[in-house]
Amino acid sequence: MIGIDEIGLGEQAFQRLGLAEGTEVEIAQARPPASLEFVRRKIDGEALGDGEISAIIRDVASHRYSHMEIAAWLVACAGFMTTQETLALTRAMVDVGNRLHWQSPLVVDKHCIGGIPGNRTSMIVVPIVAAHGLVCPKTSSRAITSPSGTADTMEVLANVDLPEERLTAIVAEHNAVLAWGGRIGLSPADDVLIAVERPLRLDTMEQMVASIISKKVAAGSTHLVLDIPVGPTAKVRSQSDAVRLRKLFEYVARHMGLTVKVVFTDGAQPVGRGVGPVMEARDVMAVLRNEPDAPEDLRDHAVMLAGHVLDFDPAIEGGKGYARALELLASGAALEAMERIIAAQGACERQLVPGQLWDEVKAVHAGRIAAIDCERIARVARQAGAPMDKAAGIDLLVKVGGMVRAGDVLYRIHASTQTGLDFARDLASEDPGYAIA
Amino acid sequence: MIGIDEIGLGEQAFQRLGLAEGTEVEIAQARPPASLEFVRRKIDGEALGDGEISAIIRDVASHRYSHMEIAAWLVACAGFMTTQETLALTRAMVDVGNRLHWQSPLVVDKHCIGGIPGNRTSMIVVPIVAAHGLVCPKTSSRAITSPSGTADTMEVLANVDLPEERLTAIVAEHNAVLAWGGRIGLSPADDVLIAVERPLRLDTMEQMVASIISKKVAAGSTHLVLDIPVGPTAKVRSQSDAVRLRKLFEYVARHMGLTVKVVFTDGAQPVGRGVGPVMEARDVMAVLRNEPDAPEDLRDHAVMLAGHVLDFDPAIEGGKGYARALELLASGAALEAMERIIAAQGACERQLVPGQLWDEVKAVHAGRIAAIDCERIARVARQAGAPMDKAAGIDLLVKVGGMVRAGDVLYRIHASTQTGLDFARDLASEDPGYAIA
Repeated sequence: MIGIDEIGLGEQAFQRLGLAEGTEVEIAQARPPASLEFVRRKIDGEALGDGEISAIIRDVASHRYSHMEIAAWLVACAGFMTTQETLALTRAMVDVGNRLHWQSPLVVDKHCIGGIPGNRTSMIVVPIVAAHGLVCPKTSSRAITSPSGTADTMEVLANVDLPEERLTAIVAEHNAVLAWGGRIGLSPADDVLIAVERPLRLDTMEQMVASIISKKVAAGSTHLVLDIPVGPTAKVRSQSDAVRLRKLFEYVARHMGLTVKVVFTDGAQPVGRGVGPVMEARDVMAVLRNEPDAPEDLRDHAVMLAGHVLDFDPAIEGGKGYARALELLASGAALEAMERIIAAQGACERQLVPGQLWDEVKAVHAGRIAAIDCERIARVARQAGAPMDKAAGIDLLVKVGGMVRAGDVLYRIHASTQTGLDFARDLASEDPGYAIA
Repeated sequence: MIGIDEIGLGEQAFQRLGLAEGTEVEIAQARPPASLEFVRRKIDGEALGDGEISAIIRDVASHRYSHMEIAAWLVACAGFMTTQETLALTRAMVDVGNRLHWQSPLVVDKHCIGGIPGNRTSMIVVPIVAAHGLVCPKTSSRAITSPSGTADTMEVLANVDLPEERLTAIVAEHNAVLAWGGRIGLSPADDVLIAVERPLRLDTMEQMVASIISKKVAAGSTHLVLDIPVGPTAKVRSQSDAVRLRKLFEYVARHMGLTVKVVFTDGAQPVGRGVGPVMEARDVMAVLRNEPDAPEDLRDHAVMLAGHVLDFDPAIEGGKGYARALELLASGAALEAMERIIAAQGACERQLVPGQLWDEVKAVHAGRIAAIDCERIARVARQAGAPMDKAAGIDLLVKVGGMVRAGDVLYRIHASTQTGLDFARDLASEDPGYAIA
């Protein structure tokens, strides 16, 4: 209970202030941050200078902005943002955060802009690259609007919440790590902005570029392979949008001293079979173990991206990265690297299996699968409970090009709760997300 | 205290829900309003249809939007808004509010877009018009960012918080009223939007037009004289902006069935001597009483506007409104009308006088007053405590064109508290807002 002359604070506020209970405090009305004047100028349609953007981001990272003010800033930026402003935003986001430093002159990373369910290639690329011997300290986010992020899926296999010292030590010993980036504070401003972007579902090119590049630079990466899936239900839907986004990534990365190789991939349908943490982890391990029924598209996709990462190695002859990646996977070297990484992070003791409640979504008529809607599949998997319920998700039994008869199973929905299963089934029965021609 | 299975609510929430304490309630997580999809489309740069805007405004008026979501909507609209969207917004704001209805086929009003300190013409125009015999149910706002609104100044003389029945009865007996509009719920959506516009200081043409026209239509006005002051420190700073704003007012008013006469006035400097409720009320009464030292500019300005209002009367020969207004003022008929209105609303018993703490701002060198900064004067008056402290404000002793010697008093700051006086004096000593050539 709070007495007279006392104030109560939430746990988060106590953490931020770094004060113990019982501390004597003075309170004063907060003055609105001066940088709000710059936000007003942005709303008025002006382009801001580097110093102005930097002042805004400093205040955002220091929790001086209300959600209302952040929304005003983000929506004004969504209206228009120059290339120079995007670069300034990226730099400002790096400047207010923590930075990791590595001994190696070559620190590689691989990143996908997201939007394609099951596209869990990082967990195959990283062990391949580590087996080759490049330094690859991979920090990932948890899912924001998708059924699983790399951190959520990796967490099925190992602890991903690593303090900076352990992360550094694991990389020193094993070349790589697959950790959750939230602990390390690489871009605290971005974390604050996301709290508003998510409920408003704001997702602009400029914010995406600043968010991704700032986190890579802060993580100490020098070389990045960036995967942009293009498809009718992907984040990027046309070739011209893809090229515009590529150029923006290249411009900002170059000025931040980061070498970037942008790869456009086929984002026409989900990748692999599993959607949701447990089933994605199963697919990843099947590929690393060279199991005969491992999803081929996930394997091909990952090896191609790993090849591009290996091509950054000056010791590799131009264009031979792909063959090297294939060899490291086929020989079991990548699997061994993954097992070392898992052990170093702390293997998950409980063997997780797909949710024991399940239902099948069936073809209503015979024909060829013409298209699979990535957004729909993601929504069904989320309704089933992914990513919070790690065992929830979808197993895709047939992909684009496959032939089905009426009544054949298109996919299986797994859940741990009846409510989750019912919600997902209801959504799938409205529209399963499969077009059968 | 709140027990288990109980919830506590603020007084506002109790009022909104219309439930008594102890009522049994069920609570459920609120779903985000469906109209947020339209806000997202607006952020993406699309123009919205009438139905979409109407859905947004219904949800805003029903308090279903968070401040973050309202900010997103307002900033997206600040980016661009078509004329058709502005009209749809105006109509939607009328539709969700209360409407007043009058017996008379001619219901007149006068409105100023604001921004000029001391420009308290409504309190002179309304009694002139009422004395002539036109129906003029004037509802005004309190100050949002200015040192005083008409409602704040009128409150020095009479009660302005009138329930709808009393307001209607006073108009029936005396043709006019000078009341606070907040009680009557004319545009509840606008009230919600203002809660976000104010801290973000968002003030776009489109929002202004929708806000003003919707309130006039809801108040049952048929004819409106609209005062747009144009000047270097006014809200509207160039002739081309003024024309653009005029056309938008005319377009929206015409489609809402409201006859509007737009008048551009000289917004180069404050109007009258007093800035702040008590001193403005003093000036208004001096004009109505035909006192020899009453501020001429306030008088001229008010009579000109009253003339335009009277020109709406079919019984008045074209262009003779001005002469009629002058006659009603000079004869004391306007003063009598004002005294009847004050008595009907309930005269303020305590005679209010300018704040007894005061300080003088003096000319640092001799010369001619070349300019007075309206924004600066408004800020100094607010620092002194206006409008919450009714006796706080500024008395302007010299206006543009006046000659001063070094040490002559430019204006006097009045306050009721030492803090207010100190704040205002500090701001004035940085820059008094007077340019002496």
